Order: sequence, then structure tokens, then C-alpha cells
Amino acid sequence: MSSRDAVLRAAREQFSRKGYDAATLRAIASEAGVDPSMINHHFGTKEQLFMAALELPVDPTDHVAAVLDGPPDGVGERLVNRFLTVWDSPAGAAGVAVLRTAMQHEGSAALVREFVLNRAINPLLTGLGIPAREAPWRGNLVASQLSGLILTRYLIKLEPIASAPHAVVVRALAPTIQRYLIGALAGGLPGWMGDD
Amino acid sequence: MSSRDAVLRAAREQFSRKGYDAATLRAIASEAGVDPSMINHHFGTKEQLFMAALELPVDPTDHVAAVLDGPPDGVGERLVNRFLTVWDSPAGAAGVAVLRTAMQHEGSAALVREFVLNRAINPLLTGLGIPAREAPWRGNLVASQLSGLILTRYLIKLEPIASAPHAVVVRALAPTIQRYLIGALAGGLPGWMGDD
Repeated sequence: MSSRDAVLRAAREQFSRKGYDAATLRAIASEAGVDPSMINHHFGTKEQLFMAALELPVDPTDHVAAVLDGPPDGVGERLVNRFLTVWDSPAGAAGVAVLRTAMQHEGSAALVREFVLNRAINPLLTGLGIPAREAPWRGNLVASQLSGLILTRYLIKLEPIASAPHAVVVRALAPTIQRYLIGALAGGLPGWMGDD
Repeated sequence: MSSRDAVLRAAREQFSRKGYDAATLRAIASEAGVDPSMINHHFGTKEQLFMAALELPVDPTDHVAAVLDGPPDGVGERLVNRFLTVWDSPAGAAGVAVLRTAMQHEGSAALVREFVLNRAINPLLTGLGIPAREAPWRGNLVASQLSGLILTRYLIKLEPIASAPHAVVVRALAPTIQRYLIGALAGGLPGWMGDD
């Protein structure tokens, strides 16, 4: 394992066990067996290291491109399907640890929020040609359903959703995600999308 | 404050700060200024005390009855509306603390799961006359959307959903909840509802 990988591994371990606020670069460096100055040099600040540790399991960019690749009326289905593939993988297990941490600490919750919005949801909405005034609400609604899927399937482990095959979860959730992304939202929803 | 209230208050504080597994009846008794035998006498086991601490902020029974009271085609709207009223109240803040704890500890996650299913979701589905073979999936889907609403509105605090008035959130989510509770689920969804 390279010292860079050792640092990222130690960072994920420390951030998920102690939380963002309590984890220190010194302790991460110690666990990784490197000098703290090496972390500063390769990753920058604690926030940048956290982002690097968060990003490592998955680069949303490729997934966003794959979800956009196809007819618009299948985008909900493609998103749920891709989402489950990522979260059911080993990278998803790391993601669950990150999310647990984010639930405990305002600081890391904000980082997760920025990461998910800027790297995944907003590029997807932009790629779909969603007008800027609709994007925040549509993105929030998608996040509300998909974060709840993570909670119920991977953390609280409700059955049958926790053990269900992808295809079944996709069929149940795709119409919801489709509506949130590009569908009609309940009669125009005056007052919550600017001047609608 | 009665000693019973003092125990419940100490229990919520200890369970949410230390988590279910690490909290002890001895420490709770100490913080409440009572003898540990008093807790055993009034609440029973640690699990029973946890349930009592969970239940105090809100009795789902009355809310379930209110959600059931009206035409079936408005049940999704009534559920989201009632849900927001409870979670926006001081009891909801206690609920957020409980959920944070549940995210960290398998033991308390299971308690929350049992509580939500047995006291809120299942009575609602029964009241709606949902067949037993459909109830687990419909309940899971409702939980996936509403738990994600808690996450995005109260914990991760995405905007605009975190600050939006009830009426706006209700209009956005009610069609989803309506479909999950009593609507058509994507062509019968063969294989995930028993013999469909």
C-alpha cells in the first residue's frame, strides 16, 4: 500500500470512528505511519483530505454520464439502478460509514451535502436541461427519496427492502425519481419554484 | 419534575449522547438522582426504558387515527402533513436525537425499526385495509420516503426543503406517499408481493 493509500485509509477510519470534528491530521498521520507534513503536502487541509477520503470509493462523474445516456423517460429507472449498483458494492459500505459520521457532526454533514449536490445531483440536473429555478427543489426531492433508500436498505435494514433484488427496488422507486427529476410537480406548485 | 420524568429525561440524554449500547441504567439513575431499583420497578429493562423514552415525545396512535380520518384519496396528503407537524415540533427535535443514535448502533436501530413499524406504519396500513401480503413493501416504501425527508430537512438540512413551509413539502411528496400507500405499483411488480 502506498503512503497515499495508507493516509486515505487511516482518514476514513478516523473520520468514521471519531467524526469529522474530533479526527486530527496528526492522529491520521500516526495511524498511516507518515509524517503530518506529508498529508499537508499531498492533500492540503483537513477538509480537503476528508473530500479525498469521501471521493475515493466512487467518482460520481462517470455515473452521472451513464444515467444521462438514454431516453429522458428512462432516466428515473437508470438513476435508481445505478445508485443501487454503487451502494451495494464495497464502495457503498464505505459510503454508509461516511453517512453515519455525517449524521453526527454538522461539519461533516455540510461536506457530504456539498459533495452530493456539486458532484452528483447538480450535474445530473444540468445534463437533463432542468431550468435553474427548478433545479434546487428537484434535486432536494431526489435526495430525499434516495437518502431514505440508503437509510432503510443499508442502515435500519427494513425488510423486504433491505434484501430485495435491484430490479424490484428500481420498479418501485423509478416512477418517484422520474417525477422528481423531470415530471410534473403537482399543479405547478406555486410559490416554491420562484414565479410559477 | 417527578422522578419518572427525571428518569425519562436522563434516559433520552444518555441514549442520545452515548448510544443505546453504552448507556447504562446505573448512569441514567445517577443522572436522574434516583436509585437504579426505581428504574427497574417503573420501567423494567433497558430496552423497555428506551421504548418509553422514545415514545414520550409522541404517541403515534392518535396521529394514525387522524391520518385515517378522511377520504382514501387524501391519505398521502394527510400523512405528510401530520408527519411534518410532529417533526417540526419540540417532540421532533427529540426524535432527531433518537434517529442520530439509531444510526450508530445496531441495537437501537432495531428498536426504532420495531417502534416505527409496529406503532405507526402497520396500524396505518391495517386501517387502510391493505392486504397483508402487500403491507410490508408498501410500509417500507413509505418509510424510505419519510425517513429521507427527515434526513434532508432536519439533519443534512438541504435547501430549499429544510426551510420550506409544510404546504409546499406536502404538495411535492403527497403523490409519492399516496402511490406507496394505496396506489398502483408499477404493473403489479411480479415477484415482490408474493403471488402477484
